[in-house]
Amino acid sequence: MPSAADLNAVLAHIDADIDNSLERLFALLRIKSISTDPAFAADCKAAAEHLAKDFASLGFAADVRPTGGHPAVVGKSNGSGPRVMFYGHYDVQPVDPLNLWDNPPFEPAVRTLPDGRKVITARGAEDDKGQLMTFVEACRAWKKVTGGFPIPITLLIEGEEEVGSKNLANFLRANKDDLAAEFALVCDTGMWDQDTPAITTSLRGLVYEEVKIKAADRDLHSGLFGGAARNPIRVLTNILGGLHDENGRITLPGFYDGVKDTPPAVLEQWKKLNLTSDSFLKPIGLSIPAGEKDRMLIEQVTSRPTCDVNGIYGGYTGEGAKTVIPAEANAKISFRLVEGQDPQKVRDAFRAYVNARLPADCSVEFALQTNAPAIALDWTMKPLAAAKRALTEEWGREAVLIGSGGSVPVVADFKKTLGLDSVMVGFGLEDDRIHSPNEKYDLKSFHKGIRSWARILAAFAEQRV
Amino acid sequence: MPSAADLNAVLAHIDADIDNSLERLFALLRIKSISTDPAFAADCKAAAEHLAKDFASLGFAADVRPTGGHPAVVGKSNGSGPRVMFYGHYDVQPVDPLNLWDNPPFEPAVRTLPDGRKVITARGAEDDKGQLMTFVEACRAWKKVTGGFPIPITLLIEGEEEVGSKNLANFLRANKDDLAAEFALVCDTGMWDQDTPAITTSLRGLVYEEVKIKAADRDLHSGLFGGAARNPIRVLTNILGGLHDENGRITLPGFYDGVKDTPPAVLEQWKKLNLTSDSFLKPIGLSIPAGEKDRMLIEQVTSRPTCDVNGIYGGYTGEGAKTVIPAEANAKISFRLVEGQDPQKVRDAFRAYVNARLPADCSVEFALQTNAPAIALDWTMKPLAAAKRALTEEWGREAVLIGSGGSVPVVADFKKTLGLDSVMVGFGLEDDRIHSPNEKYDLKSFHKGIRSWARILAAFAEQRV
Repeated sequence: MPSAADLNAVLAHIDADIDNSLERLFALLRIKSISTDPAFAADCKAAAEHLAKDFASLGFAADVRPTGGHPAVVGKSNGSGPRVMFYGHYDVQPVDPLNLWDNPPFEPAVRTLPDGRKVITARGAEDDKGQLMTFVEACRAWKKVTGGFPIPITLLIEGEEEVGSKNLANFLRANKDDLAAEFALVCDTGMWDQDTPAITTSLRGLVYEEVKIKAADRDLHSGLFGGAARNPIRVLTNILGGLHDENGRITLPGFYDGVKDTPPAVLEQWKKLNLTSDSFLKPIGLSIPAGEKDRMLIEQVTSRPTCDVNGIYGGYTGEGAKTVIPAEANAKISFRLVEGQDPQKVRDAFRAYVNARLPADCSVEFALQTNAPAIALDWTMKPLAAAKRALTEEWGREAVLIGSGGSVPVVADFKKTLGLDSVMVGFGLEDDRIHSPNEKYDLKSFHKGIRSWARILAAFAEQRV
Repeated sequence: MPSAADLNAVLAHIDADIDNSLERLFALLRIKSISTDPAFAADCKAAAEHLAKDFASLGFAADVRPTGGHPAVVGKSNGSGPRVMFYGHYDVQPVDPLNLWDNPPFEPAVRTLPDGRKVITARGAEDDKGQLMTFVEACRAWKKVTGGFPIPITLLIEGEEEVGSKNLANFLRANKDDLAAEFALVCDTGMWDQDTPAITTSLRGLVYEEVKIKAADRDLHSGLFGGAARNPIRVLTNILGGLHDENGRITLPGFYDGVKDTPPAVLEQWKKLNLTSDSFLKPIGLSIPAGEKDRMLIEQVTSRPTCDVNGIYGGYTGEGAKTVIPAEANAKISFRLVEGQDPQKVRDAFRAYVNARLPADCSVEFALQTNAPAIALDWTMKPLAAAKRALTEEWGREAVLIGSGGSVPVVADFKKTLGLDSVMVGFGLEDDRIHSPNEKYDLKSFHKGIRSWARILAAFAEQRV
């Protein structure tokens, strides 16, 4: 077990070395590892190789391992006995529209916000390169100062999180023995606010569908056919426009089946957190919660299921006017699910809903992208207490246990395939613009994130004694 | 006045010279004169210069004249006294999606359809390069055989029809004296069917609007904000999805104000034309008329106003999944209008409809592209009878007088600015795929179109005697 003096020396080293830590993060951010676009496959491989080399330099037995898609990186420290498996992902979201970025998305920079905060801006600055490097830098500091790590560590970094981790479950199954651990650490979540650390103990699930409505077998001129020819955009907008009622409830039959009401005690806690439109929506230019009218804002974004159209396209989208009636119209639609909902049933209900509204001379094609259930973790699992204590010490504020509106499907895979529970700790903030232009990560999140992991590793070691 | 022998000699020359006529059309089709995209401005100018040079070679005093946009071409034949002004346009629609073309859109080819028809395929093959060249080639034949034309002719070819002829009215005003004529000939319409020639005597108007709905001031991640953040695609689809009721009627308040019922006698005529779903919709892969349920198909496409979404886009439209809630969503919407409707009122009603459905924390931007009223011509004007007789002689079938669902806004400009009525004759067919990939013009339309104009010019001269 490391001593308190060891931990203090490690924390001091982290502070002294922060500029170098930042430079190492920048090197990773410069790699264009966009997983959803096949044009960047070589960049994904380069990111994996970059990480494997870095892990090896810290004394991990590290290698790049093939999957059915982009490769994964595995690094294992010396030492026997129970270990923790740290998970992160090196892949990032696409960067369009490029013209909305203040600096090129793969040329990271440090900028100062109007409120004085210093932030790292780049695609992946937070999600998830910045987050995963907080853990790697904590390992580096322990290694440098003490020659080893407080507990045995396995690193698992995948390259397909942003495309639904579609090859991860198979990879975990194939490497099950090699990835044996006591529990998993997942760094892909956020703080409660700038000053309050958080451990995430529930996650919404995700059903993501692509829909293509086809009408005529070619594009038509509306001057000749307008009035009589079926317009697939009209069909699509009519279908999508009916997915919510006037109270913000989703109209799919059976959609809310199995959804539990939040226990009154938890609701009381949430009320105290006082999440308001002013604090949550105003900073992004909105003012009115758009979800179910009879639910608090915090429920709308964490404990209630949602439906969003994430993309839509059809017909002429260039400059100027073209009087075309297109042959097809497309949309990308996602549902965030909560505990109790069956993703398969939601998918089926959506498809039935679309089919029921489809004119007889149209056809529809669906393409399922993601199908992950919601996750609720055990709030009483032992490592949570250690992590909570360490976070509270670092930030000087009681760490809170929260539900997250986002989905981290790997947590279900870890449980199902490897039998591992996950501790989800991360340092993202609401205004990080992840998946958007000008994604950023606060320098404070990065620096204190590294220090937090250094403390958490010590706390895990201590707990075992 | 030309003799019957002259006409016969001209027709024989047209037959003998058809391959050269085709080669001259191909030369024009090779010029990428897409008017809506500024990248092709030089090509538009090249098309204008190409035509002016050709007109000059036929003895027209021809020049390229600047407008506020792409230039126009004017050619005037010798001879005094009442003349006809022929109108066409050299500009064409964009060509996307390119991958759906069988041959490159600006490399014209002659192909044989499964039913044995030979067709010219290229962007502009029909609309309007093929059509305008039928008239030019008829002039060429008269000139070659008789040394002149049966009546004095002015040619006016513009380059902005596909972008709403936005500079034409000013151009006509500025050149009013120079463009004086007895009436106009407009070649931008179609036949009734492959064997039956037609003269178009009414045209629907057009209101074309672009709509942009803006919500948050940035793209958002649905994991963080989903449920509470306003989704502009949801707002847009909800608005567009409500523009028609379940009977296919347009729901804008006041939209049908001023729309007259078609006289029973005309309806009787139309019933006899027997336009069915089988003959009209089946060839394009559809089966059910999508317009007002209580109207005949022929009414839906000619005498009733319509509303179509011509394009829609917002959010992530690339490959794969991205769980974004976009900052904005866009649509291009057009209304085809009939006699009695006020375009300004329709535009205002649409904007009021959108604003009434806009959540308080969203904003909307409109951009009007076109605003043209419907046109009903005088079915009894004298040149119609001459044109009808000539067409009937050429095709061996009684030419019919029809209403068109499309809009040719210049006809209103000719009346308002120059005081000219228009005779609309064209040889397009329903399956020409104008504005779409694989646009085509039947070789028969081109060949017999040239012969038709040769006859029509003679008939006009005869009528004057």
